[in-house]
Amino acid sequence: MGGGFGPHCIVPACISCLAEYPSLHLVLVGQSSLLESLIARYPGVDRARLRVEHAGEIIAMDERPAQALRGKPDSSMRISLELLRSGAAQACVSAGNTGALMALSRYVLKTLPGIDRPAMVTAIPTQAGFCHLLDLGANVDCSAEHLYQFAVMGSVTAEALGAVRPRVALLNVGTEDIKGNQQVKLAASLLQQAEGLNYIGFVEGDGLYRGEADVVVCDGFVGNILLKSSEGLAAMIAGRIEALFKSSLAARMVGFFALPLLRRLQGELAPAQHNGASFVGLQGIVVKSHGAAGPEGFKSAIRRALREIEENLPQRLHGRLGEHLL
Amino acid sequence: MGGGFGPHCIVPACISCLAEYPSLHLVLVGQSSLLESLIARYPGVDRARLRVEHAGEIIAMDERPAQALRGKPDSSMRISLELLRSGAAQACVSAGNTGALMALSRYVLKTLPGIDRPAMVTAIPTQAGFCHLLDLGANVDCSAEHLYQFAVMGSVTAEALGAVRPRVALLNVGTEDIKGNQQVKLAASLLQQAEGLNYIGFVEGDGLYRGEADVVVCDGFVGNILLKSSEGLAAMIAGRIEALFKSSLAARMVGFFALPLLRRLQGELAPAQHNGASFVGLQGIVVKSHGAAGPEGFKSAIRRALREIEENLPQRLHGRLGEHLL
Repeated sequence: MGGGFGPHCIVPACISCLAEYPSLHLVLVGQSSLLESLIARYPGVDRARLRVEHAGEIIAMDERPAQALRGKPDSSMRISLELLRSGAAQACVSAGNTGALMALSRYVLKTLPGIDRPAMVTAIPTQAGFCHLLDLGANVDCSAEHLYQFAVMGSVTAEALGAVRPRVALLNVGTEDIKGNQQVKLAASLLQQAEGLNYIGFVEGDGLYRGEADVVVCDGFVGNILLKSSEGLAAMIAGRIEALFKSSLAARMVGFFALPLLRRLQGELAPAQHNGASFVGLQGIVVKSHGAAGPEGFKSAIRRALREIEENLPQRLHGRLGEHLL
Repeated sequence: MGGGFGPHCIVPACISCLAEYPSLHLVLVGQSSLLESLIARYPGVDRARLRVEHAGEIIAMDERPAQALRGKPDSSMRISLELLRSGAAQACVSAGNTGALMALSRYVLKTLPGIDRPAMVTAIPTQAGFCHLLDLGANVDCSAEHLYQFAVMGSVTAEALGAVRPRVALLNVGTEDIKGNQQVKLAASLLQQAEGLNYIGFVEGDGLYRGEADVVVCDGFVGNILLKSSEGLAAMIAGRIEALFKSSLAARMVGFFALPLLRRLQGELAPAQHNGASFVGLQGIVVKSHGAAGPEGFKSAIRRALREIEENLPQRLHGRLGEHLL
């Protein structure tokens, strides 16, 4: 029921994914009358693989996590997570209120042993391919131990998603040992002693986009600012390019040929397009779709959940955490 | 003597600025033999307005600030700042080691009364024009009071550089009151009570680039990551665009016309091109040029210093701080 477009975006995305993945089964949790009416627009859909589960309440996008946790036992988000906990579902995908989703996930699913706080991680495009960035906003204050746990979880997640011996770095304001705040310096000394992790040291904001690391670790305040400012800058550049090719008749003529190419590139690069941030460190797979994502974006989030189910990510994390955690 | 290109970049920039501003006088501080040999390449230069002051030591780009402070009394950076303190110069412009420049500036010039820590501020391009962002890395750990002082200094600086009743915002992970870490929440409550400041609340990373505020305040860790990741992303997008127009013969033909337009845009947008970050809160004008800037970039930094001299920024800050500080 969440996100900027709600079921009007999610239902078409789900129906398209069902066609794409013949073994996929989906449960849509929310206002059943609305969901059924939207599904009815697609008469060919295989209802044996698409079930609707009614939920009487909705968590608003600006609702406080504590309120969502205590005041709404019958929310679509809560019921989805209960389905995951009971084993009736293997992953939960939501476009709703991020803070509420994190709070409910922790409460319903619990964290993996040894993990204090789950983190949000997503892949962002770099000059060299992709970089897994975490935390993206679940934890605005982090100790060195939290950053260390994020590094371990990021490394295992990157491996599960295909990276070989991923290079793990701490995001910092410089690459020399003396740079950074206390948490980052202390996390660096913890990571230097960690065996089995390919820790490469500090990376700066520009180094991240140059592709110097496969996993970049920071607290949720910094990660959120980095991700959103990157989205904002990419949108600004795209807007300026569109305006540039309207600035004169000659520019319009060039733009007629250039803009279709550039718009394709924009789709490849905008961080929001690589949609789907995972909550890692929970006893279950939870993927958060960007609230502003359209149907194609929501499909990416479902694909990410499928990938994590195939790789059995929570089990894999559980196994590896034992080796690494302090 | 500092920056990636040293006097080979700085001398041509200075000579070009002398031609542009007939009332400008410059003192070049560093290895006099090298500086004189570079100046000798420009026989027409008005040496009555270009003086060389010898300095026997150089602070390396990776030197620790504490070492620069204690171990090098004869560095070009130190002597430049002493010229400023004595009144022999009205502003200091450096492309050198940022941490050392900040430490030496604080030691030699001292902060304005009521200011605990100077901040670095620069103007970055947004959809609506420009936004003054501070701190950019001078202070990696900040209390709410520091953020409040940055807000006051940012507002006065923006006014001095032409903004009318600048909208001041705190950078945060959301716009609701409950969002953010303790420092940011507490700074917000201090700013809400501040009279005479046009405080508009929280702004997110994407809102910054949409131009929602004229002054955006954050700690130096976050500001540094935002600025450098923006530089990295802008460079990545520029690189992908160049590659796009080489991907096929047809694309090459479009690129022949499109790339010159796009390169001009790149120059306008890359944050590093708006070169020159000011250290505000000191008893003197100090401008830091980006280490990677070429002669045109260094000229921007000199222009920024000229503007601050014209506006008498430190005096103006001193007057306004009395009204606002806690």
